[in-house]
Amino acid sequence: MAHELDIIAAIRKRAPQQVEQLRLGIGDDAAVIQPDGVKELLACSDVSVEGVHFRRDWLTAKLIGRKALAVTLSDIAAMGGRARFALVSLAIPSDFSAPMIEELFSGLFEIAEQFGVAIIGGDTSSSPQGLFIDTVVLGECDAGKAVTRAGAQPGDRIFVTGALGASELGLKWLEGGHRLPERSAANAAEALIQSAIRKHLIPEPQLRFGEALGTRELATAMIDLSDGLSTDLHHLIEESKCGAVLDAEALPVARSVAELASGELSVDPLAIVLRSGEEYELLFTAPPRNKDRIFATAKALDVRVTQIGEITEGDDVKLLREGEVEIVRPTGYEHRI
Amino acid sequence: MAHELDIIAAIRKRAPQQVEQLRLGIGDDAAVIQPDGVKELLACSDVSVEGVHFRRDWLTAKLIGRKALAVTLSDIAAMGGRARFALVSLAIPSDFSAPMIEELFSGLFEIAEQFGVAIIGGDTSSSPQGLFIDTVVLGECDAGKAVTRAGAQPGDRIFVTGALGASELGLKWLEGGHRLPERSAANAAEALIQSAIRKHLIPEPQLRFGEALGTRELATAMIDLSDGLSTDLHHLIEESKCGAVLDAEALPVARSVAELASGELSVDPLAIVLRSGEEYELLFTAPPRNKDRIFATAKALDVRVTQIGEITEGDDVKLLREGEVEIVRPTGYEHRI
Repeated sequence: MAHELDIIAAIRKRAPQQVEQLRLGIGDDAAVIQPDGVKELLACSDVSVEGVHFRRDWLTAKLIGRKALAVTLSDIAAMGGRARFALVSLAIPSDFSAPMIEELFSGLFEIAEQFGVAIIGGDTSSSPQGLFIDTVVLGECDAGKAVTRAGAQPGDRIFVTGALGASELGLKWLEGGHRLPERSAANAAEALIQSAIRKHLIPEPQLRFGEALGTRELATAMIDLSDGLSTDLHHLIEESKCGAVLDAEALPVARSVAELASGELSVDPLAIVLRSGEEYELLFTAPPRNKDRIFATAKALDVRVTQIGEITEGDDVKLLREGEVEIVRPTGYEHRI
Repeated sequence: MAHELDIIAAIRKRAPQQVEQLRLGIGDDAAVIQPDGVKELLACSDVSVEGVHFRRDWLTAKLIGRKALAVTLSDIAAMGGRARFALVSLAIPSDFSAPMIEELFSGLFEIAEQFGVAIIGGDTSSSPQGLFIDTVVLGECDAGKAVTRAGAQPGDRIFVTGALGASELGLKWLEGGHRLPERSAANAAEALIQSAIRKHLIPEPQLRFGEALGTRELATAMIDLSDGLSTDLHHLIEESKCGAVLDAEALPVARSVAELASGELSVDPLAIVLRSGEEYELLFTAPPRNKDRIFATAKALDVRVTQIGEITEGDDVKLLREGEVEIVRPTGYEHRI
């Protein structure tokens, strides 16, 4: 691999020099930040491992970098915060060339810039086998306004952004040999496959909408969908010490899932929606009185939001489906551990 | 490996519940910290990779965890800061058993508690091969008091903590088949080998002394010795845009190096002192007028400090040795990248 100091020099050159509150960026033993004394600081990390979270033949080095940071930015979105700074640590195998490292950082910087995040530090090492990326994001929110998983109350409504299920289909199609093509799709079916693969490989963290929910104090609890709706809703109700009921009819099904799942893959679209991981949409709860403001905020930011159920007493997740009540188990995956 | 949620539950249970400024620790999408509004925040990370930074047969899982955090704490020491919070991300191979994971976290928590650091987050994943650990430490210092690499001025004296060279010898002995024994050394030579191996495997970050230098504004520039004296001094003079001259007679040589290097290994002890990486001692500069306060501070904290040279005009490192002047090249290693 390229020499560690060359990599650091290249990163340092690319990093913005003037960043609000940043006293010292890449190049010393630590970065120095001057907090504003009012806002609270958010800190989270996500690790991406070759062969576990991604395969190198599925996506470009640039998209590997982009997604590694996107998933951690999504955690800040789920706190209702604004992402500010990132540290990126890499262990790079010898078959990862210098241009690939450059591409990887290009993907990291591209999404960082998209969301106004400064990369302020990190570490690089060689790796005996496989690429390993750990991204840490520091964010901020007004004091006391962080939206945790623990604030949901019986009677709150449950909402979700986007439409669900495409990430799992995209993963299946990748495993089946489909790739992100360089040309546009030849037909409607191929276009759906491409959109599902893009949903899996190029997730968009819902930072602006998450921050708006936090700043306006519209949500009582929030989590991002990394493990799948059923699993992540369980995380939320466990922390909030309550139950939930979902309305099967209301669940927003991704177009690729609705159109292709029941045919080509012969599985229940609803099962995919409940299970599909790495969606990086936001699942949140709010009292009914906030509903109009939530939808107005979503409309202003061009984000699709759907009310999918209600928080209840109890400690389980139920699904109302064609007049029947089913218990929903956490069926989502956890990166195949 | 053990189930991810089990690991997180175990870590969460072990993490202290009441930590100053910590609003929310492990278990949500992000940790929440309320900065005090006066202090500056320091952020740094270090990645430890099996087969690059350590070999599993060299040390216990507990010591792997301990060292992974120790080296990042050392970066905070080198900024003159106080370490406060840590995030730990792991990719764990399948041959790393649940008790080993427990031991690993035991080592992480032990050193965290030793230095008053709260582990507030992180991520875990499986690893197809080899253990990866990324540790991020957040520290703090009084506003404007962070000691960077860039403040050295011609005329400043150069100081170093501890005695140097044992870490490289310890590494050589590990590679030669020596191990940390369970019994005490049978003779003086064996005791020296053991002490060198311990220096390599169980580094002690100089946090208290580093913080004292920062708080009392005694140092103009500082760096910790991870890549070796010659390399790290080059990093410091590059950032400070100056030169340096070292006094060969003054360099503090570890006892194992002085007694064993010239005999058993037939190499120049001075070359080892200049090159030995992963010493995690502090290299710093200060004007001569601070000398008495520096030595008084060191004595109060039971830290050995030696004056080893002087900052000069220019852009290189010279070594004064028996009346001759040599140019010192950066000979330290960078984790064998």
